[in-house]
Amino acid sequence: MELVAELLHITAGGRRIAILSDETAAALGIHSSDRIRIAHGKLETIAIANLAANFPRNRIGLYDDISACLGINENEKIDIQLAQLPESLAHVRAKLRGERLRQADIECIVKDVVERHLSEVEIAAFLTALSIYGLSMSENEALSKAMVETGKTLNIGKTPILDKHSIGGIPGDKTSILVVPIVAAAGYTIPKTSSRAITSPAGTADRMETLCPVNLTIKEIRETVNKTNGCLVWGGSLELAPADDLFIKVEYPLGIDPLLLPSIMSKKKAIGATHVAIDIPTGAGAKIKTRTEAYLLASDFVDLGKRLGMTIQCALTFGEQPVGCAIGPALEAREALEALLGNGPADLVDKATTLAGMLFEMMGMDSGKQKAARILQSGKADRKLRQIIEAQGGKANVKPDEIRIGDEVAEVKAQQSGRVLWISTEAIVQVAREAGAPKEKGAGVVLKAKLGGAVRKGSVLFQVYAERSGKLDSALQLAESLQPFVLSRKAEERMLLDQVPAKALREKPFMLER
Amino acid sequence: MELVAELLHITAGGRRIAILSDETAAALGIHSSDRIRIAHGKLETIAIANLAANFPRNRIGLYDDISACLGINENEKIDIQLAQLPESLAHVRAKLRGERLRQADIECIVKDVVERHLSEVEIAAFLTALSIYGLSMSENEALSKAMVETGKTLNIGKTPILDKHSIGGIPGDKTSILVVPIVAAAGYTIPKTSSRAITSPAGTADRMETLCPVNLTIKEIRETVNKTNGCLVWGGSLELAPADDLFIKVEYPLGIDPLLLPSIMSKKKAIGATHVAIDIPTGAGAKIKTRTEAYLLASDFVDLGKRLGMTIQCALTFGEQPVGCAIGPALEAREALEALLGNGPADLVDKATTLAGMLFEMMGMDSGKQKAARILQSGKADRKLRQIIEAQGGKANVKPDEIRIGDEVAEVKAQQSGRVLWISTEAIVQVAREAGAPKEKGAGVVLKAKLGGAVRKGSVLFQVYAERSGKLDSALQLAESLQPFVLSRKAEERMLLDQVPAKALREKPFMLER
Repeated sequence: MELVAELLHITAGGRRIAILSDETAAALGIHSSDRIRIAHGKLETIAIANLAANFPRNRIGLYDDISACLGINENEKIDIQLAQLPESLAHVRAKLRGERLRQADIECIVKDVVERHLSEVEIAAFLTALSIYGLSMSENEALSKAMVETGKTLNIGKTPILDKHSIGGIPGDKTSILVVPIVAAAGYTIPKTSSRAITSPAGTADRMETLCPVNLTIKEIRETVNKTNGCLVWGGSLELAPADDLFIKVEYPLGIDPLLLPSIMSKKKAIGATHVAIDIPTGAGAKIKTRTEAYLLASDFVDLGKRLGMTIQCALTFGEQPVGCAIGPALEAREALEALLGNGPADLVDKATTLAGMLFEMMGMDSGKQKAARILQSGKADRKLRQIIEAQGGKANVKPDEIRIGDEVAEVKAQQSGRVLWISTEAIVQVAREAGAPKEKGAGVVLKAKLGGAVRKGSVLFQVYAERSGKLDSALQLAESLQPFVLSRKAEERMLLDQVPAKALREKPFMLER
Repeated sequence: MELVAELLHITAGGRRIAILSDETAAALGIHSSDRIRIAHGKLETIAIANLAANFPRNRIGLYDDISACLGINENEKIDIQLAQLPESLAHVRAKLRGERLRQADIECIVKDVVERHLSEVEIAAFLTALSIYGLSMSENEALSKAMVETGKTLNIGKTPILDKHSIGGIPGDKTSILVVPIVAAAGYTIPKTSSRAITSPAGTADRMETLCPVNLTIKEIRETVNKTNGCLVWGGSLELAPADDLFIKVEYPLGIDPLLLPSIMSKKKAIGATHVAIDIPTGAGAKIKTRTEAYLLASDFVDLGKRLGMTIQCALTFGEQPVGCAIGPALEAREALEALLGNGPADLVDKATTLAGMLFEMMGMDSGKQKAARILQSGKADRKLRQIIEAQGGKANVKPDEIRIGDEVAEVKAQQSGRVLWISTEAIVQVAREAGAPKEKGAGVVLKAKLGGAVRKGSVLFQVYAERSGKLDSALQLAESLQPFVLSRKAEERMLLDQVPAKALREKPFMLER
């Protein structure tokens, strides 16, 4: 059947959608989400039909994504036919029924996700089913491989390639900014790609961006690494695993994260990593709540690494409170620089040297942690980070207090004396975000007390930084209602953890950061 | 933040979507699927953010659905703010984690589905989770009620209101066209709404449409029922359960049907039914494959009916082959009229009188089936259907052979002698659809042999009807490859049911018809 093209003059973000009126669709026997073959001259493509009640009859509405690739002009006649549903959709449906998918099935799905032959509704159903049924190790392997194969790769041309990754979820975790220069200063290659914050107050890419550009091309990354042995860049625009980027977009509103393993491991594989230290923060406020869960996940990482030809070591780390004291892009960058200058908080330094040490021991060294600590103390790591900053286009000799932080500051004080019994990382995250982080890079929170610390009534628990006074006020208001610190002289004085049902509906914050 | 409105001049089919460029969204701290509050003068609304790479900066793209309701003009400045995610999404996420939902949670979800505050991605995830976890009876009840409350109702003002429903899946099932006039002729009120075919060759609305208009308004339905005690109309445009219409749209590409119970029961409740006979065809080619499944479903129907204040009786019916011989809208309407004139196939007549008889016995009568058979034989049911046809705007005295069927006819013959051991209803459905049904109303299949029948080599197994020769050819080709009939002298000569893996990838046909 021939329809008249109506160009919509906007893109559908890569989606392959064509719009038909209800009547035209009925005449063609097409239902919403059916596939249609659109032919124009010698070119043709498959699009997903979207029906709209008030669209003109006998016309087909085309977003630029399709009209441009077929070279269709306004009002041209184009041939439309009902097409078969994609084979990948049969595999998606099989997973909805709980069937195991084979490697070829998963390759087919991932390819069709990248080529946009599966709709977001179909991807959402697939991810939901994976989230509920879980993935077998073979499925994790097939997904990781397919995600690498459909993306770009970073070819440094050296071996070994070291890497470090945290599954995330702990605010203030600027460990990578220490680990990368320590490892690079020891002569190893460590091309680190990081994410930006989605639901947290800062991702490593956000932190680094207060020091230098992080939005490098693959070519620029290669140059930086060849020059300095390392880099700290944003991985988001590199298309290392474009399927994963599309999966994350769908997962985000759903608050599910079934592809944690293949998502992380595909990106490690795509940058050519041979040895990876994976940090699994474990604790009530972390993504992984219990040791049992953490050990299971760790053994999955190790197993999946083997299947993908990578050596993996996992570190289960203390995840009951933020790492260091600063939370928020600029505040964290300052703290990281201070730590490289020898003035870092003990937990941050311990964590960074532990992870760097693990990588050293994977290289066959003894006493890796001590070696890492020596590199840190010697100032070599500091000099290395400054080389990296310069190679990425930043100011090499930047001083911590030159990093711009928010002008609007307020203090939250203890209303009683006692010891810090627990800190709600969730509440700290929400307060820092309310203050403007990560969008406003100078915003955030600085802790003045940590777990087990003794505080007196009226002493400062934490500071809130913002770039605008309105944001500061609403962050303080939120801090007032959330009360992130629980103080007590002795643990046994405060037995109640929470009440169910809660007094108000509280959405569990969802951590998608990788 | 203020953005400039860019009107897209198309509807998004009711979806509340606003388009932002990636950069503008980043500046606002908005991710894809986040909610944004759009204010214009005194009006405001919540929209779902869609990000597009090439959209102009500092502009917001609005479909007519939003610009019209807020009265926004091209290039007007409008105020945009990041909004909270809807509370319903928290309940959807709870279901993804496997939590039970309470009535208030489900009301909140259904309301937000109807008001388009949940995206299709979120609805898809919800339906997938329901499909995998299953629904508790309380969840079924809450969903049914919420779907009724958010829709229109048909108020006939009489009691009792009888109804009949088949869960569908059997081709050729024109039983309703007999049951409605039998019941109405006995003086009972039976306002029957039906669906059109989605994946089958004909729905009852498609069949009836070859006899009279079926697209009546609620007012016209009331008039028809007041005049004749019954009607046979399309329920699709009545908005009896608009949430369900949106659910079905999302379920269709996924091939899942978790809301079978609330979908059917909400529509029965919305038309005011007090007593309902529900037909559950059971057999290898039906939706419900085994007796065990059928009994479970039946007891769920009865239980849910009680919770909704309706008396339900279920009939488990033989579902191993099509009902009657004709498949396809016009062919089936012909066969139904013939049956009302006393020349119907035995299985169709038995099924119709059984179901009508069940309703009579629910009214307190004895020997309901015999009573139904007498009404059929007496010609009263025929006269009643003609009254209904006339009241709906059709030709009362239409003769069966006046109903237009396809001119293109071909016969498929037995390649050997034997008895009909089984008939693949799936294959028959596919052949009828390939011939053009339900879009081309004269297309379809007429069976010339049924289960257990003896055929000789060269005798006709079935005829294929089409309106166009091309369609006839491709239907015959498909029939050749699918071989819907299995013949054998004795069952024990043909033991193989199927082979795994199949020789070719075959998508399991999905039956969404209700």
